[in-house]
Amino acid sequence: MTRNLTITDVRLTPILVADPPLLNTQGVHQPYTPRLIIEVVTADGSTGIGETYGDTKYLELARPFAARLIGRQVSDLNGLFTVADEIAVDANRVSEAIDVGGLRGVQTADKLRLSVVSGFEVACLDALGKALGLPVHALLGGKVRDAVEYSAYLFYRWADHPEGVAGERDDWGAALDPAGIVEQARKFKERYGFTSFKLKGGVFPPDEETAAVHALARAFPGHPLRLDPNGAWSVATALTVAEELADVLEYLEDPALGTPAMAQVAAGTQVPLATNMCVTTFAEIQEAFTTGAVQVVLSDHHYWGGLRNTQQLAAVCRTFGVGVSMHSNTHLGISLAAMTQVAATVPDLHHACDSHYPWQPEDVLTERLTFTGGKVVVSDAPGLGVELDRDRLEFLHRRWAADDGTLRERDDAAAMRVADPEWVTPTVPRW
Amino acid sequence: MTRNLTITDVRLTPILVADPPLLNTQGVHQPYTPRLIIEVVTADGSTGIGETYGDTKYLELARPFAARLIGRQVSDLNGLFTVADEIAVDANRVSEAIDVGGLRGVQTADKLRLSVVSGFEVACLDALGKALGLPVHALLGGKVRDAVEYSAYLFYRWADHPEGVAGERDDWGAALDPAGIVEQARKFKERYGFTSFKLKGGVFPPDEETAAVHALARAFPGHPLRLDPNGAWSVATALTVAEELADVLEYLEDPALGTPAMAQVAAGTQVPLATNMCVTTFAEIQEAFTTGAVQVVLSDHHYWGGLRNTQQLAAVCRTFGVGVSMHSNTHLGISLAAMTQVAATVPDLHHACDSHYPWQPEDVLTERLTFTGGKVVVSDAPGLGVELDRDRLEFLHRRWAADDGTLRERDDAAAMRVADPEWVTPTVPRW
Repeated sequence: MTRNLTITDVRLTPILVADPPLLNTQGVHQPYTPRLIIEVVTADGSTGIGETYGDTKYLELARPFAARLIGRQVSDLNGLFTVADEIAVDANRVSEAIDVGGLRGVQTADKLRLSVVSGFEVACLDALGKALGLPVHALLGGKVRDAVEYSAYLFYRWADHPEGVAGERDDWGAALDPAGIVEQARKFKERYGFTSFKLKGGVFPPDEETAAVHALARAFPGHPLRLDPNGAWSVATALTVAEELADVLEYLEDPALGTPAMAQVAAGTQVPLATNMCVTTFAEIQEAFTTGAVQVVLSDHHYWGGLRNTQQLAAVCRTFGVGVSMHSNTHLGISLAAMTQVAATVPDLHHACDSHYPWQPEDVLTERLTFTGGKVVVSDAPGLGVELDRDRLEFLHRRWAADDGTLRERDDAAAMRVADPEWVTPTVPRW
Repeated sequence: MTRNLTITDVRLTPILVADPPLLNTQGVHQPYTPRLIIEVVTADGSTGIGETYGDTKYLELARPFAARLIGRQVSDLNGLFTVADEIAVDANRVSEAIDVGGLRGVQTADKLRLSVVSGFEVACLDALGKALGLPVHALLGGKVRDAVEYSAYLFYRWADHPEGVAGERDDWGAALDPAGIVEQARKFKERYGFTSFKLKGGVFPPDEETAAVHALARAFPGHPLRLDPNGAWSVATALTVAEELADVLEYLEDPALGTPAMAQVAAGTQVPLATNMCVTTFAEIQEAFTTGAVQVVLSDHHYWGGLRNTQQLAAVCRTFGVGVSMHSNTHLGISLAAMTQVAATVPDLHHACDSHYPWQPEDVLTERLTFTGGKVVVSDAPGLGVELDRDRLEFLHRRWAADDGTLRERDDAAAMRVADPEWVTPTVPRW
């Protein structure tokens, strides 16, 4: 064996990628969203790629992290957490408050670090897989299924970003009422074959969103449906919605904010509650599981700290009889490939995973991943099985470099203020 | 990459290995104990080795398991659990009762299957590591320490097996009182450098064993001490012992039988409780953790289902603030190498691991593993870093083949009846 798995180079490329005007309870997606593309190169010439959040606060952690990887073994994945511990975090930069842009629960220094680790972990797994001639799933113990099912991620949205704002147009059109949401779902089903539907709620008063879900249930009888208002409701509102939708929901996602409120909702309904807000770190699990606050944890390998931590989360959930599936924030094909590889190894994945991928018209891959029958086939090629398109990467990086800084931090409220100067981030519960 | 990781052959070799007359609450170790040595061979010529329990009920599961592995990828570790599910278990052979020989809690068909999986998982990891040129720890995400600390496993014992019984002599001599235990501990420290001491109790009335622990505390001030009566005590007795030893115990192991009794003991003492009896499967975790019954889980990769499940157990423990360390039953060097590889990857291993290895004069390796300063150095050689001695394997297998069947099933009570024909397995609580 002359293989040399020592890391000799790490490249970080921040980019801005097009994002449609998707609405949520905090505002609207900006026309471009920052992502960070990570490349890890080994002495024997393998290059692995990873992807994570690209806001400045992530970049500031990623740079010293990258520097510390040089000289380490690409197989030393447990050691990535040691590296993360070593990186000083300017606590002042991390507010202990709701992450406005990410809608992913309380943001802490620890969670920020893990979001950075995940990008490097995926890149290391990709490089290791390529070096060894094994798919990433084999490095995770092997796939237990050949394809991973995803759900259609329905959004209330405008047809275009506000006038005067740059952005890439798409052909989805507006969706601002039940008929628009049903039409969007129909298009999702036609184009990708999805059979589960999730509606991002918290945008309109609950009765309008309830009506949209009922319209979906009528249009797609027997299809699993979910509604996710990102914690925008009071416990009382959540219980009212749960009662009205009890017969049609697969689960209700984050109806209320925080574990105590979720536990109150859970105690009052038979509708399973899912979360990617009150359980987003291992430290939040004990309270949530012992109070019965959640029945399904939506893992996101970006902020749980990578694919191996996602497997560990799945093991904890399994042990406590809690379901597991996957959350998604705006991401590109590298992360979809990573999600698919790890999802393929989780034995009890009983719900279709979320993915924003169909909403992203741009990618950094030579070939986009495809959904067939709502599923992504699990690649058996070495590593993640995807290839970086350097020209696209460079193009999207130049967009980032040219930005005056306003789009380098995702800020859904700021984007909303372009259309509505009076907009302030709503206080929660909003309804 | 022309590597072919398809499994082309699996060899099962049951053996009998010498075991000294170690006493426990159920009886005494027989002069020979059955183990099963597993070899997994891949198309590209890599051979991996594993080890697990060798009693007939394990062999009966291992044979169809081995047959189903042919043609599978050696990297398909998650798939081993699918194979296990496929193997029919004759439920009548598995009594839902305390495992007399193993002293490892209630025995179920599921636990039996997992004990078989673990031997194959270790063999597959060894073969995969050899094929890829990577140590097993690298396949588990990489070591976070260079050596793993073990504790001295002190036993009340006779100098020899009863007259007329075959067996291999050793030079340890008898230990039947506090002075004998202290002398044994001194020898362990001299020979191996151990600085933690665990006494297997439940053999004599609690006041005698308490006296032995006090004697150890006086002889080895500041050294972590543990006492494990294998669930032989009532809650009241356990609380009395805990109070008497509160100042000298690192933890008390399985003072009472079953999670409810352990929870009662835990509620009445500040001494941490460890277990390898009431939490031996993932299914037993929830009750134990939510009732605060245990503060340290002693993992045993043999019955938790392998090294990757051991990592998952450690993740569950970490999530719930419960400590983790390692249990040991009679085992050889293959398993010590496997324990060392996985222990090297568990970040929060705060207690020295148990190991029977110093008690086993025989092994199937070309070179015995060594303890220096109480530690085993983590091998960076491909696979487990150990090599099978085929002559020794054949010798020990011939002993198994020549046995009339009486030693093919570990039975500590039967062994005790050789010395004391009136002996019956004590009912629990014994004191």
